[in-house]
Amino acid sequence: MNSKLHLALLCINIKLSFTHLKLFYIITFLTIVHSNSQTPGGYELWLGHTEIEDPTVRSEYVETTNSIFFSNKSTILQTAKAELVRGLDGLLGQPINVQNSRHLLNSMWVVKKADLNQELQSALKGDFEKIGKEGFIIRPVSVDGRSILLISANEDVGILYGVFKLLQLIKMQKSLAGVNVVETPKIKLRMLNHWDNLDRTVERGYAGFSLWNWQKLPEYIDQRYTDYARANASIGINATVLTNVNANALVLTDAYLEKVAALADVFRPYGIKVYLTARFSAPMELGGLNTADPLDNDVIEWWNNKVKEVYKFIPDFGGFLVKANSEGQPGPQNYGRTHVDGANMLATALQPFGGLVIWRAFVYSETDATDRAKQAFIEFVPYDANFLDNVLVQVKNGPIDFQPREPFHPMFGAMPNTPLVMEFQITQEYLGFSTHLVFLPKMYKEVLDAETYRKGKNATVAKVIDGSLFNKKISGMAGVSNIGTDLNWTGHPFAQANWYGYGRLAWDPYLSSETIAEEWLRLTYSNNSEFVEPVKSIMITSREAVVNYMTPMGLHHLMDTGHHYGPGPWVGDLSRPEWNPTYYHNSDKDGIGFDRTPSGSNATSQYAPEVAKIFNDPETCPDKYLLWFHHLPWDYKLKNGGILWDAIALNYQKGVDQVEQMIGIWKQVKTYISDDQYNEVRMLLEIQLKEAKWWRNACLLYFQNFSERELPIGVELPDENLEYYKSLKFPYAPGN
Amino acid sequence: MNSKLHLALLCINIKLSFTHLKLFYIITFLTIVHSNSQTPGGYELWLGHTEIEDPTVRSEYVETTNSIFFSNKSTILQTAKAELVRGLDGLLGQPINVQNSRHLLNSMWVVKKADLNQELQSALKGDFEKIGKEGFIIRPVSVDGRSILLISANEDVGILYGVFKLLQLIKMQKSLAGVNVVETPKIKLRMLNHWDNLDRTVERGYAGFSLWNWQKLPEYIDQRYTDYARANASIGINATVLTNVNANALVLTDAYLEKVAALADVFRPYGIKVYLTARFSAPMELGGLNTADPLDNDVIEWWNNKVKEVYKFIPDFGGFLVKANSEGQPGPQNYGRTHVDGANMLATALQPFGGLVIWRAFVYSETDATDRAKQAFIEFVPYDANFLDNVLVQVKNGPIDFQPREPFHPMFGAMPNTPLVMEFQITQEYLGFSTHLVFLPKMYKEVLDAETYRKGKNATVAKVIDGSLFNKKISGMAGVSNIGTDLNWTGHPFAQANWYGYGRLAWDPYLSSETIAEEWLRLTYSNNSEFVEPVKSIMITSREAVVNYMTPMGLHHLMDTGHHYGPGPWVGDLSRPEWNPTYYHNSDKDGIGFDRTPSGSNATSQYAPEVAKIFNDPETCPDKYLLWFHHLPWDYKLKNGGILWDAIALNYQKGVDQVEQMIGIWKQVKTYISDDQYNEVRMLLEIQLKEAKWWRNACLLYFQNFSERELPIGVELPDENLEYYKSLKFPYAPGN
Repeated sequence: MNSKLHLALLCINIKLSFTHLKLFYIITFLTIVHSNSQTPGGYELWLGHTEIEDPTVRSEYVETTNSIFFSNKSTILQTAKAELVRGLDGLLGQPINVQNSRHLLNSMWVVKKADLNQELQSALKGDFEKIGKEGFIIRPVSVDGRSILLISANEDVGILYGVFKLLQLIKMQKSLAGVNVVETPKIKLRMLNHWDNLDRTVERGYAGFSLWNWQKLPEYIDQRYTDYARANASIGINATVLTNVNANALVLTDAYLEKVAALADVFRPYGIKVYLTARFSAPMELGGLNTADPLDNDVIEWWNNKVKEVYKFIPDFGGFLVKANSEGQPGPQNYGRTHVDGANMLATALQPFGGLVIWRAFVYSETDATDRAKQAFIEFVPYDANFLDNVLVQVKNGPIDFQPREPFHPMFGAMPNTPLVMEFQITQEYLGFSTHLVFLPKMYKEVLDAETYRKGKNATVAKVIDGSLFNKKISGMAGVSNIGTDLNWTGHPFAQANWYGYGRLAWDPYLSSETIAEEWLRLTYSNNSEFVEPVKSIMITSREAVVNYMTPMGLHHLMDTGHHYGPGPWVGDLSRPEWNPTYYHNSDKDGIGFDRTPSGSNATSQYAPEVAKIFNDPETCPDKYLLWFHHLPWDYKLKNGGILWDAIALNYQKGVDQVEQMIGIWKQVKTYISDDQYNEVRMLLEIQLKEAKWWRNACLLYFQNFSERELPIGVELPDENLEYYKSLKFPYAPGN
Repeated sequence: MNSKLHLALLCINIKLSFTHLKLFYIITFLTIVHSNSQTPGGYELWLGHTEIEDPTVRSEYVETTNSIFFSNKSTILQTAKAELVRGLDGLLGQPINVQNSRHLLNSMWVVKKADLNQELQSALKGDFEKIGKEGFIIRPVSVDGRSILLISANEDVGILYGVFKLLQLIKMQKSLAGVNVVETPKIKLRMLNHWDNLDRTVERGYAGFSLWNWQKLPEYIDQRYTDYARANASIGINATVLTNVNANALVLTDAYLEKVAALADVFRPYGIKVYLTARFSAPMELGGLNTADPLDNDVIEWWNNKVKEVYKFIPDFGGFLVKANSEGQPGPQNYGRTHVDGANMLATALQPFGGLVIWRAFVYSETDATDRAKQAFIEFVPYDANFLDNVLVQVKNGPIDFQPREPFHPMFGAMPNTPLVMEFQITQEYLGFSTHLVFLPKMYKEVLDAETYRKGKNATVAKVIDGSLFNKKISGMAGVSNIGTDLNWTGHPFAQANWYGYGRLAWDPYLSSETIAEEWLRLTYSNNSEFVEPVKSIMITSREAVVNYMTPMGLHHLMDTGHHYGPGPWVGDLSRPEWNPTYYHNSDKDGIGFDRTPSGSNATSQYAPEVAKIFNDPETCPDKYLLWFHHLPWDYKLKNGGILWDAIALNYQKGVDQVEQMIGIWKQVKTYISDDQYNEVRMLLEIQLKEAKWWRNACLLYFQNFSERELPIGVELPDENLEYYKSLKFPYAPGN
């Protein structure tokens, strides 16, 4: 509860105490209970249900939910009912009357299609066809001449999603009078990927450690597991990969499967399926075989048996996510086989149980370093026709690796016969860890909205992903989780918005990032527009700010080695060329940037000709991708008349200025939230500002060695020299 | 809030809604706020302040605290005032009236001695002399003919402790009518030792990871740091060592000292000083010297400068805790010097600033393995007269290493010229991690109450520790912390009682464990004796239970290697003899146990003759230490007439039975607490039972190979064979 609310309560107490002594006692009795609940900030995420203060607004909802018929039979429906009661109880501040059978005076029904009478089923036929297995309907219907608010769905999980939607509408104080929501997720597989290790460290985790307490599982069920499932279900996430893609075979042993099954039991009532990463060499490590060749009969048999075993523990197991022949992980190429051989072997084992193989396309050759950006395309596109039906190929949003800005990955649109899963990174490996406020849906949307030109115009990446462009039966989106044991789950309170926003875009990749930011702010902080509007502007600016102060104008991979914390554009001595920042920015006296046009690596040829044409010419290539595709002289004239060096420097400065503006706005909204809420973000913004300056100073001092030019007017002079920035070391940076 | 209380509120709502419509709205308004505060269970520790329900009881406190004069000038006093307001507000359910100046109608004063008038100062002269720097007085005094409740102290921190004491009295509903508390801590240095690494792993930590988020410090101050300080201050802990005794020199660099200083700033207002572990080789690792010889001038100068630097960052820095020449840690012996040379060199550097060196006595030779139990005594006792005044030697409670039961360490009482700090382990490295309910104050008391006979009778270990036996000016107790990032801080909710109980015994080592258990239960769960009494019996039994099912009758060091999780009595192949369980139980066809009498290692000679005499004779040696001191045949006749083998087996069975009884009792108290509170402990008790059986089965099957005897009647037959238990592997057990 925020402090202002608390003050209000005390005032009531004092006013009443003189006239209604007995009443005074009752009220104070209630006050205390609350005032001592030291809820650690942010644990509730966007699911806190404080009462709506305005009695007029509240009364509409009280009337609508006055008498609810809720037909609940399955565990998922029981979950949905519990959420409805808990949410309404909170929002409306009174006990909710829910019945298991129909009443004449019902004001609301939460009923699956099969339990509706024929008349309503016919009347809503069109809607029921639209919403499929996971969608829902929220609208008033007429029953015996009375208007009743109906939440309905074809399947149990649709009811659960509908309940969460209704609670969100009420929390945002949308009128239910003319409500007519007919929603269904546009993407089937809405997945979190946890890069969680069995020792509870999280690769690229910046919010503490892994939620999965393997030591105490399966017997001890942490309350957090349930709260995690609630949060995911509330935004439509229906799948979770529990383990790191840099995989450990041990999770496939009985001792761990028993624990995985316990988690699956917690998640199932929230419509969430469990997946695991499969280490390709598991038949050797666990089975004692001397090969993991996917065409070897013993290997095939081992996996067949292993999959059977997994399904004995977890009857609705989702399947395997596999990182193979990438950054040292074993894979089929170790035996002269292909990704197809590997994926199809596992897919064959999973197929009888309805399981999926999600095979990652994040690969780059250990031997050919001509252009890392090209390699996934080269290895996968030729196999487009060869994967089995239950194989999906998971592709990162851009061709390098989750940089602050990358053009969309050229594989999107290039494999019409293969369902491609979009892999976004929610955890901020390259975007300031959990100390920088960066609203990622803005970045996700840039990729989803990109035109592939693979089937004419309007063939956006979103249409590839949701399966609509090439009529795919299955579709998926994966988000590399930013969740850990921190009290507020994500370290930075605004990083909750990235979890939330990822889920919303997996549900509907056509939502705008502005809509998502506004929803999240209203659900999490305050429904007051005087708070929401300025803070929304912070969120919307934030992604461009981080690009500006880290890697403007198409620069990429400038971070320091290993931990990826802070700038390291000078690093050029790592064993593999494509691990070095110098490989990517390629600076010398003559200029800067990676030539990916036909005169260089010709990576642009992997895009459709319409796209390649735009990228190939520095005159048409958007400035934001300029140095991604071109190596240009320091005095190259830009469209706005300035020269390249000045533009780089001014962009770095602009990033710093934007963070300063974010701080200014945050200070102005102080009064709308609690002191704790205000202070934690303010402290983090100060770190962000310090680190934005660090990035600017270190990069400009370094590049200045090559450009041999002064900083343009308006750019602050660095307060340390380059040697200082090079000397900084962070041996215990998290997530490494 | 527990669920019954919530139900009660709803009843009030319903009853009133028919007659007082307006009232109804006000009340429901309040209800909701609470019903949605998803307080993760246990975060509040023993500091939750729910309102006292009984209006008669409450009215006494309301009257007494009706008008409070609180003279606050320092930051510590401001802390104390904030705690008083927060606590009373919660417990009494109404805003508290606190003034900065005296009023005629004051009912209570919280005032330091210096701010009292001469008359009161004289009247309380005796009390003020008793309470020293950290103590306090709580008692009614007469001012102008009116009775006023006074909290007073000589120093600020005494006021803080007095405030916490008052809140505890009120929470436990003790009448304040005749209150007369004159308390002062009996031990000066009341310290937590965190074995926290800079990567946030915690050596022997079973409650998540380190609270210290080095990445975000110094700018970001996590709310947990403050809540940690509050909890410690509330039980009188006044010192914290932030880093692992297996030390990392990096914490002594500026980059980290700045972070340490930020933590010190948070802890200072709660009367808590920060200490660090000093890696003895730091002059080489950080300073680039080629030696860390404590007699080398460059080394001495390096440490002098380093200490100056530390005090620039942290003006009230406490000092260094050092583990040297122990388990691979560097130390003075690497250069042919002694512990005295090392400790005194550091002490000389710290002395000008009032800093302390706490030098650990936990050492055992890498070359001489005759009896590890003897080695600390051999290395330290001869140097009794040689340590400087600001050196304390920290000694583990027993001569091996935090086993479920050890006799007291023979160094206690044997070094009259050196202040010895008692090192207890709160984290349950050898006692079931954070899944077993074991109330450790019962164990601590066994050691503190032990008779050393070093100055005749009644020369207990407690009197050595508190400095009273040998008139020491300084005294200390250290507890190896069980605190981590788990929502409830300690993993097992009952492990909070070990943190609490450790603090209480550091304050007063003469308290009984029963008193502590009762206090903690009343402050944490419920003041209802029908809950408190049975659960207290669980706690009091629990320590004996774990001894029985792990290491009965003086057995010790039977755990598996490395992680120390579960039984491994069969392990005998580790490189150093004294790392092997077989070295300790020493079983063969002829018998079992470690002969430490004059016919064996003669470790008993390190005790006073009176003690040695008791231990040397198996007839007088208590059964609980029998196999610690004696190697005896399997058919050895015990005092009760039974034979040794049967007694061992029956003790293992008894441990299992005791856990089953604990579960039975817990089931009976279900109705007094919330479902969540009940369930989490029930789940953990089930794990404890499973693991108690595992210990019993594994140990008895193994020892049976030597005893070649049947299990006596009453002992359950193991459900697996010995090979099964030997095959269990736990590569990711926590804390390793």
